[in-house]
Order: sequence, then C-alpha cells, then structure tokens
Amino acid sequence: MTSTRPARDAVSAVWAVLFDTFGTVVDWRSGITAAVRRTAAVHGVPRDAEAFADAWRAKYEPSMDRVRKGLRQFTTLTRLHRENLTATLADFGVNLPDPEIERLTHAWEQLPPWPDSVAGLTMLRRRYIVGPLSNGNVALLTRMAKHTGLPWDVIIGADVTRRYKPQPEAYLHAATLLELEPEQVMLAAAHNHDLAAARQAGFATAFVLRSTEFGPSQSGDLQAESDWDVIATDFVDLAERLGAADSSPH
Amino acid sequence: MTSTRPARDAVSAVWAVLFDTFGTVVDWRSGITAAVRRTAAVHGVPRDAEAFADAWRAKYEPSMDRVRKGLRQFTTLTRLHRENLTATLADFGVNLPDPEIERLTHAWEQLPPWPDSVAGLTMLRRRYIVGPLSNGNVALLTRMAKHTGLPWDVIIGADVTRRYKPQPEAYLHAATLLELEPEQVMLAAAHNHDLAAARQAGFATAFVLRSTEFGPSQSGDLQAESDWDVIATDFVDLAERLGAADSSPH
Repeated sequence: MTSTRPARDAVSAVWAVLFDTFGTVVDWRSGITAAVRRTAAVHGVPRDAEAFADAWRAKYEPSMDRVRKGLRQFTTLTRLHRENLTATLADFGVNLPDPEIERLTHAWEQLPPWPDSVAGLTMLRRRYIVGPLSNGNVALLTRMAKHTGLPWDVIIGADVTRRYKPQPEAYLHAATLLELEPEQVMLAAAHNHDLAAARQAGFATAFVLRSTEFGPSQSGDLQAESDWDVIATDFVDLAERLGAADSSPH
Repeated sequence: MTSTRPARDAVSAVWAVLFDTFGTVVDWRSGITAAVRRTAAVHGVPRDAEAFADAWRAKYEPSMDRVRKGLRQFTTLTRLHRENLTATLADFGVNLPDPEIERLTHAWEQLPPWPDSVAGLTMLRRRYIVGPLSNGNVALLTRMAKHTGLPWDVIIGADVTRRYKPQPEAYLHAATLLELEPEQVMLAAAHNHDLAAARQAGFATAFVLRSTEFGPSQSGDLQAESDWDVIATDFVDLAERLGAADSSPH
C-alpha cells in the first residue's frame, strides 16, 4: 500500500505542497457532529446531530457560490458558517442562545485531523513548504492548526486571495505569494473537482482518498477520476511517494 | 533581569503576539554582511562588506516610502531588495553576474535569529498565537522561518495587507485576519516608531532591546521611548513577562 514509486517529472518541479483542508486534512463531519451532540446534551436539541451537521454543511457550497458569482462581496467562511448555522437552526425549528451559536460556529476551528494527517505533514515538511490552500479564512485555519498541531509553514486562507476555490485566482495568487511558478506548487486534495481546477491553473496534483468524509454512505470522490500526478491512500503514503519519508531538505 | 512582573491590564486582553522581524527577530546586519563577504571571497568585490550591507539597507526605507506615498503600486520586499542591490552595486562600482545577484537577494531569507528568538517564541507559542507582522513578503518570511526554525503559527506579510508599516492599515488588517480586536493583538518590536504606530492603531505594545542591530555604533532605539505595555531585554524575558514561560494554553 505504501511502496514508494518513482516521482514523475511533474513532481520533481514541486517546492510547495498545499492542502485542501476540510475533508482532506480534517474530518469535519465527525467534528461537527460531536459539537452538535454536545449542544443537544445541554439544550435537548437538535435531535439528530448527524442530520443537522449534514444540513449545515450542505449550505456551504451555495453560500460560497454567491460570493464566487459576485452576488455579494467577499465574506469569510467564519461568517458564512455562522449565517448557515442560523438558517439551519431555523430549518430544524431549533432555538439556541447566542453563546451556543458562537461555540458551534467556532467548532470548525477544532475539527479532528484524519489519523495520518499530522504524521504525513511532518514528513512532507522536511522537504517541502506545506500549507493549507483552503476556502477557510486565516483565523479559522490558524486556530485549527494550533488546536490540532498541524505543522504548517504558511497559512493561505481565502481571505488572503479573496477568492473561493475553484476560482483560478485562488490557486494562482497562492503561487504568487510563495514566489513560485504554478508548476512548482502541488495541490493535495480528496476532491477531484478541486484538483481539476488546480491542474487548469498549472499546479501539480495529488489525490488523497478520504472515503468516509461524507459518512459511511459517501458516493463521490471514492477514486481518482483523472491521471493526477500522485494518487495516495493517505498523507503518509503521499509523503513516501514524494520522497519525503526519510529525506534531507530539498 | 528576567524576573516575572505582573501583567498589566493591556496585556491580559492579548491573544496574539506579532513581531517586527528584521532587527527584532533576526540579525539582518550580520547575515547580510556574511553573505556579502561570501560574494567578495568569490568575486573579489565588494571590498568592505559591512559598508556595503549598510548602504544596501539604507535604501530599504526610502524604497518602501515610495510605495507608502502611492508613487508606485505595491511591490514586494523581495523585489525592492533586488532593485536596491542593483543600485548599491552601481554606487560601489561593482559588477556581479545575475546568479550572484539572485543569491544575495535571497540572503534575506537566511538571516540568523538573535540567540534568544527561537527559545522565546517557542515559549510564547504555548499561550499566544505568534507570527511576524513584517514589511517582508510571505515567501521571504516563510523561507526564513523554515531555514531558521522560527515556530510561527501564521505568517502575515506585507503582500497580504498590501501596506507597509507604519501605515495604520498594516496593523488593522492583521488584526482583522486573525478575527481579533486591535487591543487583543500585541506588537513586539525593537523600534519605537513601529510601536508608536501600533499603539495608535490600538495594539498592545512590547519593546525588545536589540542594541546591536545596526552594529556597534548604533545610536537609536537603545531604550524604550514611551511607556510601552511591556519592556523586555529579549524574547525569553518577554515570554516570562507575558506569563508564557511555564503556562498552559490561554
């Protein structure tokens, strides 16, 4: 499963490996479900924590899409999460006090990493610049990293590029910030559509399988849907395939 | 010298400690002088490495000032360093091949930290978000941190705020990125003028003495010139004064 394969040419140009975060680095569904369960334990509602977590998350893409389409000005994910939570509470007919709404909003800063995330990033960091390239904002990603021990070199939030992936500027601006050409940056993600946009922008690409991001009945992103430069089972496998398992610095 | 004093009220509100970098965290003069000496060892010029380093650095503020005044659009410090190097070489009548000019330009990414910097930041990081708030750009600061082992949680470069300190937006935008109020952020700096601007923006302030930043004949910033919230002899002293020497997380 984790045998090292020779790096392809596209990989040898890479100096930075940037990561989609929600679903790829951290397990948002377990984390948010657990946070909602704590709310339910105190307030008696909502009844079905998983359904509530899924409904909240289902508003994520549509809310960013309004920003992408220019229907509203750039708004951070923290604010979108709060707005989407308020709407989800209304959908479920649930009332919560404001401090509890704040606590849930900031639960996105305390999501658990997948079991291999910290180990794999620690290996990759020896050889590459590593950082999130996420639709999360800097504050959210910084607190998440601090809470979880994610060993980022740099944090590239959507409020820096002021674009939401998969808009091309989100990738291109990240490369510019690192003074790298697009082909010197790799995006690692569990989502084929994110990798397709990154490749379109000129990035190298790595698919990492996260087969339970959306729960036991996940139907999408169960395999690589293109010839991504690397296809890995987890972050330790990714590090090994990128020659970072026992390497000296680049 | 390093006895812990009680935190003042201004300090108890602080969640993030951001650092001026050149001169405060790293010893740019020793680093650049050493890089110029390596150039001289290979190319025979320039003759006086310290004078060359000082002349190169003397163009730093004027070059940023043209950006501050709107006389040119935002330009990264990497580019300004390269332009200023070219001008300094002309002033000294020195010709160097392009790869050597690139090597010198990127010497700013490999400056040595002051002896207490990494130890103090490691202590402070237990309790606070720590990061540079520098006129350097993200790529420069990221590579510097990686080279030197500076344990930043987040890197706030001037190309994120697109303002050069001491412009107020440089401080205010940094607080916004961290979703903090200005009074929840402390600037630590060896330069009184930087602290004055940070205080004006609402930040807490910490003066850290770096009495040889400009060499043995340094004449400015040899003491705190106002009642900054903390006045420290080095970063370990700062950590102790901020209660981060042996603390649990905030």
